[in-house]
Amino acid sequence: MSSAIDELLDNAAAYEARFPGPRATIPARHVTVVTCMDSRIDPFAIFGLKTGEAHILRNAGGLATDDVLRSLVLSQRLLMTREILLMQHTRCGLHGADEAALRRKIVAETREEPPYEFGAFEDIDRSVRETVATVRAHRFLPHRDRVRGFVYDVDTGRVREVTD
Amino acid sequence: MSSAIDELLDNAAAYEARFPGPRATIPARHVTVVTCMDSRIDPFAIFGLKTGEAHILRNAGGLATDDVLRSLVLSQRLLMTREILLMQHTRCGLHGADEAALRRKIVAETREEPPYEFGAFEDIDRSVRETVATVRAHRFLPHRDRVRGFVYDVDTGRVREVTD
Repeated sequence: MSSAIDELLDNAAAYEARFPGPRATIPARHVTVVTCMDSRIDPFAIFGLKTGEAHILRNAGGLATDDVLRSLVLSQRLLMTREILLMQHTRCGLHGADEAALRRKIVAETREEPPYEFGAFEDIDRSVRETVATVRAHRFLPHRDRVRGFVYDVDTGRVREVTD
Repeated sequence: MSSAIDELLDNAAAYEARFPGPRATIPARHVTVVTCMDSRIDPFAIFGLKTGEAHILRNAGGLATDDVLRSLVLSQRLLMTREILLMQHTRCGLHGADEAALRRKIVAETREEPPYEFGAFEDIDRSVRETVATVRAHRFLPHRDRVRGFVYDVDTGRVREVTD
């Protein structure tokens, strides 16, 4: 059976040959993008980013978990970012997912409870608003005046702001 | 003062106009890439990925936190990925960072302890090996036979495998 990782490594060798050159560690645009792991979201392409310009955080859902908050604190305190763009998306695997059923299946297989919530949600705009509110309330972040939330439509490529 | 987010939104409008079209929710290459938030890492460019091909998880360091494990379980159980490529990088902000000093500074400012470790590390190869081991040991993941770890050199664009 072929390995996807081996194919990706072949592509990485080609990238090295056309490497655009080193960049500074501090992101030039002083912004962090938080979004979902979804395969249809390419933040560099969507937001016209070049390497060296923005931090990118991604997890299942684009949710403001403790790990995202930890990363945002490092982004702002060590690496001088000041704005946060939060973006969830349509047709997300967590949108309307049955958290209880998933949990039951895992417990049946492994005889153990996963030590985390999976984060299924019912309403995308509400989920974005809650994520924005969680980040704005995180007092370990020095910069919380420019935190904005969006929904990406994976069928049209449109980025829509979710207002308060 | 100009807003980086507004500039990114202008670029997003241009992206929508040349949107490549919808893709399936299940990643075509059945692989998940886990890496750092660092602004110099563009996983789509490095690994020759197109939209719709791979899940991408990113946090500060590219560490196997509970949030990454949660996301990997969803990636494999709901969205049919089978391989995991873990990649940390040279000149990471967490490499050699002084976790205790950062924590003291935050406590002095906010009079409160952050509820998480920041994850500073001393040796990049060891950090990659530990990350690989954490993922391989996570029994809620159905597919753990193709988990491989790498270091990305941000000054040359080279991807180097960390062997056991």
